[in-house]
Amino acid sequence: MIDMDTLVSLCKRRGFIFQSSEIYGGIGGFWDYGPLGVELKNNIKRAWWKAVVQDREDMVGIDTAIIMNPNVWRASGHVAEFSDPLVECKTCHFRFRADMLKSENCPNCGNKTLMEPRQFNMLFRTFVGSVEDDAAVAYLRPETAQGIFVNFKNVQDTTRKKIPFGIAQIGRAFRNEIVTGNFIFRDREFDQMEIEYFVKPGAEDEWHARWRDDRMNWWKNALGIRAENLRVRALDKKDLAHYSKGTFEIEYQFPMGWSEVEGIASRTDYDLKRHSEASGKSLEYFDDETKEHFLPYVIEPSMGIERCFLVVLFDAYQEEQVRASARTPLSKSDSGENVEGERAREEKRVALKLSHALAPIKAAILPLARNRAEIVELARKLTADLKPMMPALYDDSASIGRLYRRQDEIGTPFCVTVDHQSAIASDEKYDGKVTIRDRDSMEQVRVSVDQVKQVLIEKLGA
Amino acid sequence: MIDMDTLVSLCKRRGFIFQSSEIYGGIGGFWDYGPLGVELKNNIKRAWWKAVVQDREDMVGIDTAIIMNPNVWRASGHVAEFSDPLVECKTCHFRFRADMLKSENCPNCGNKTLMEPRQFNMLFRTFVGSVEDDAAVAYLRPETAQGIFVNFKNVQDTTRKKIPFGIAQIGRAFRNEIVTGNFIFRDREFDQMEIEYFVKPGAEDEWHARWRDDRMNWWKNALGIRAENLRVRALDKKDLAHYSKGTFEIEYQFPMGWSEVEGIASRTDYDLKRHSEASGKSLEYFDDETKEHFLPYVIEPSMGIERCFLVVLFDAYQEEQVRASARTPLSKSDSGENVEGERAREEKRVALKLSHALAPIKAAILPLARNRAEIVELARKLTADLKPMMPALYDDSASIGRLYRRQDEIGTPFCVTVDHQSAIASDEKYDGKVTIRDRDSMEQVRVSVDQVKQVLIEKLGA
Repeated sequence: MIDMDTLVSLCKRRGFIFQSSEIYGGIGGFWDYGPLGVELKNNIKRAWWKAVVQDREDMVGIDTAIIMNPNVWRASGHVAEFSDPLVECKTCHFRFRADMLKSENCPNCGNKTLMEPRQFNMLFRTFVGSVEDDAAVAYLRPETAQGIFVNFKNVQDTTRKKIPFGIAQIGRAFRNEIVTGNFIFRDREFDQMEIEYFVKPGAEDEWHARWRDDRMNWWKNALGIRAENLRVRALDKKDLAHYSKGTFEIEYQFPMGWSEVEGIASRTDYDLKRHSEASGKSLEYFDDETKEHFLPYVIEPSMGIERCFLVVLFDAYQEEQVRASARTPLSKSDSGENVEGERAREEKRVALKLSHALAPIKAAILPLARNRAEIVELARKLTADLKPMMPALYDDSASIGRLYRRQDEIGTPFCVTVDHQSAIASDEKYDGKVTIRDRDSMEQVRVSVDQVKQVLIEKLGA
Repeated sequence: MIDMDTLVSLCKRRGFIFQSSEIYGGIGGFWDYGPLGVELKNNIKRAWWKAVVQDREDMVGIDTAIIMNPNVWRASGHVAEFSDPLVECKTCHFRFRADMLKSENCPNCGNKTLMEPRQFNMLFRTFVGSVEDDAAVAYLRPETAQGIFVNFKNVQDTTRKKIPFGIAQIGRAFRNEIVTGNFIFRDREFDQMEIEYFVKPGAEDEWHARWRDDRMNWWKNALGIRAENLRVRALDKKDLAHYSKGTFEIEYQFPMGWSEVEGIASRTDYDLKRHSEASGKSLEYFDDETKEHFLPYVIEPSMGIERCFLVVLFDAYQEEQVRASARTPLSKSDSGENVEGERAREEKRVALKLSHALAPIKAAILPLARNRAEIVELARKLTADLKPMMPALYDDSASIGRLYRRQDEIGTPFCVTVDHQSAIASDEKYDGKVTIRDRDSMEQVRVSVDQVKQVLIEKLGA
C-alpha cells in the first residue's frame, strides 16, 4: 500500500482535494473537494443512501439544520462533556492533546514546563440574532445524530412507521479539534452519515449484530473494499460510555495502521430520555398491538465520509509494471523480452481501480489526433451523446499515452479512442469503429460507433 | 393559488418540513427537512447538477468548506460591508430592519422612541483552534461563491479547462438575518446552488444573456414550473453594486407577490481581482492561443434551494372537486347528477402535481384488505421488487380512499392497488392483475403483476 504523501499528492494534482483557502495559506483542519472529489463524495453518499434508505422498508431519511436550539446540546451532554484534555507549555505556549504526550517534555520546545491538563470543549460556538449575549449563544453541531433524536416523534407521527425502524441523515458536522492531521483523517469540518435505529427494549442485541453485519457487507459489496483490509472489533467494556451497551468498530488497514472507519453503537434509550426530560415532551412510542408506551432503544451506525473517501482511494490505488509501448500488462513469462526478442521497455502505471459505481468519470473520449477535423468532430459528438447518460469527458490535451495515464490515475473505467480508421471515410482501413479500453485489464476492443453507448451501459452495469 | 399557511400545514402534517428543535420551542430561521422533504430537496439538487454539470462540457463541480480562512471574507468585502441597517426601540428594545419601518413609531410597542439605524453585520462568527482571541476568529460562509473564486486556479490547473468554463457548487450557507420569516423564504441557514462562469472580458454580455435563457428554461423544463408564474427582469442600474455590469432576476408569482428566486449577475473581474490583490497570488488565466494573460470576467447564476422548494410546492399544489365514490374527475357535463340520475357526492381533493423527476415517492403499493394474507403478501413482494429501481412504499394503515388521498397530497405519481382479484387464486374473478392509478388523471388501468415494474419504469420515464 502506498503512503499518505503519495495519496495527498495525487489528490491535489488531479483535483480530488485541495487545502481550503490555499491562496491565503490555508486553515488547519478544513479541506475543499475539487471536480473529481465532489463526484466521488456524491457517489459515496448515493451508495449509502440507496443501501440504508431507498432499498429498505424500515428506514427513512432526514436533513436537519446545523445550528439547533442550544438546549439540544445541553441535554445531550455536549456542552458539559464534549471535550478533550489539553496541555499547554508555559515556555512556548504550544497546545496539544494530553494523549499525545510521550514524556514530561514539551513536544514543541522540549522544556519540562507543561501545565496540568485542562478540559477543552470542542463545540464551535456562534451567536444567533442581533444581540450578542449568552442568551443567543448557539453551537455548530458536532454530530448529525441529535438532529434525528429531537425529530423522532415528528418522523414517527408523519410516516406512521412501526418499530423497528430507523432514520438516516447525511450532513456536515464540526469539531474544534485541538490537533488535526493525517490529511482528511481528522478534520474540523466533515460530513457524517448516521443512522439511528429504534427497537423495542430487549431486541437491541439482535439488531446490534444485524447492523454490524449489514454495514460490514456494505463496505465490501457496495464500495468494493477488499475484505482482507477490513475487520470488526467489539470495544472493551471499560472503553464504553456509561449509557452504552456495547460498540462495534469497523476498522480499515491504513498505511499508518488499523483505524476506525465506522462505529456501530448500542445506545439504549439514553438520548431519547435526556431530550424527553429536558424538553418536557414525551418521546415515547405507542405500540398498537401490545398497547404499551415505551422509549425505544437505539442502535447507531455512524461514519464520516472523509475517512470513507480515504479508504476508497487507498484500497483502489495500484502501481503496476507495464510494457511502455502497448501499455498492456506484462505476464511473468514475457517480462524482460518481448516476442521479437527485443528488450521491452517497462514503465510504472498508476491505476485507481475504483468500482464502476464510485468512479467520478465513467468514460473518457480521446481523439488520437487533434489536427484532423473528422476525428475531433466524431469524438466530440460521441461525448455529447454519452454525457446525458453518464459522467463522461472529452480530452485532447496530450498524447494518447499521457491521456490513458491520466484516466488510469483518476479511476475512469473506460477510455474510448477515436482514430483515423474510426472517422476518416477516405482512409483505406476505415471501419467506423472506435477502441474501448478497459482500465483494469487494459484490453482494447473495437466497437461500432453506434453501439458505443449500449456497450458502455452494459459494461458499467455489470 | 393557496396561501402560505395551507402550505406550512401540509409540509408539517406530511413530513416535508419541521421547525428545527421543535421540542425545545424551535429556533428562529432554522428548519429541518423530514423524510419527504429530504427526498424532494435531493431531487432538486440532482436536477440542477445534471443540467449545469453533468450534461455540459464547459462546467465542473466543487464542494468547499463552510469555514474558510477569514481573509477570504475580508477580501470579498463581507467583513466590512455585509450588513443590514438595524433599528432598535429605546422603550421595548425590539430590533428590526430599517426597511421594515412604515412610520416613525416602533412596530412593536408603538412608541416614537427609535434610535438611529446602525449597520448590523450578518456574518456568523466563530473561533477556530484552542485560543479564543481575534487571531482565531472565523466566519460561517454567507454564500458558496467565494469558495469557488479562491479555488479558480486549482480547478483550472487540474482540469485544464479553457475559457469559457464554469464551476458549480451546492452547499450550506448562513446569514444572521435580523428578521426571518415567510416560512422557509428567508432563513438563517440555507442551501445554495451557485455557478461562477468565467469568460474572456468582452464576452460577458453574450454569456449573461445565454445564462439568463438557460436558467429560465431549467425552471420551466427541468422542474416543470408553469411559464405564466415565472418572469425575468433586469435590475435597474441604480440598484446594482458598483462592480456589477447588470443583474437579471428570475421571479416567481408567490401568493404574497412576485419575488426573486434566482439571480444571474454579471460581476466583471471584481472577485478574482480582490482575491488576487489580498492574497498576493496571481489568479490570471493564460490564453494558449492568443498568448495573453488576463483576469476572466464572471457571470454568476445563483439560487437558494429553499425558495426553489417553495416554488415547486406552490406550483404543484392543486385543489379539485371530485366525485367522492370513484374519486374520478368530474366533467362539467355530469357534475351535479351522475348517470343513474342520483345526486353525486362531491369532495375536495388535494393533489401535489410534482413532475415525476421531483416526486419523493414514485409509487405506493396499497393492499385493498390487510386481513387477507395473500393480498398483503403480494403487495409486500411487489414493494420489495420495485424498491431497488425507484423510491416506493407500502402502506396498509387506512382505507383505500384515505390512502389515495395521502399519496395525492404528497405527489406520488402512481398508486398500485392489490385486491382480491389480484391475489386470491380461489376468487372467481381472479386475474393476477393489479390496478395502477394515475395521480393526475385518476385513471385506473389493470396490469399483470409481472409487468408492473416495466410499466411503471416506462410511465415514469415519459
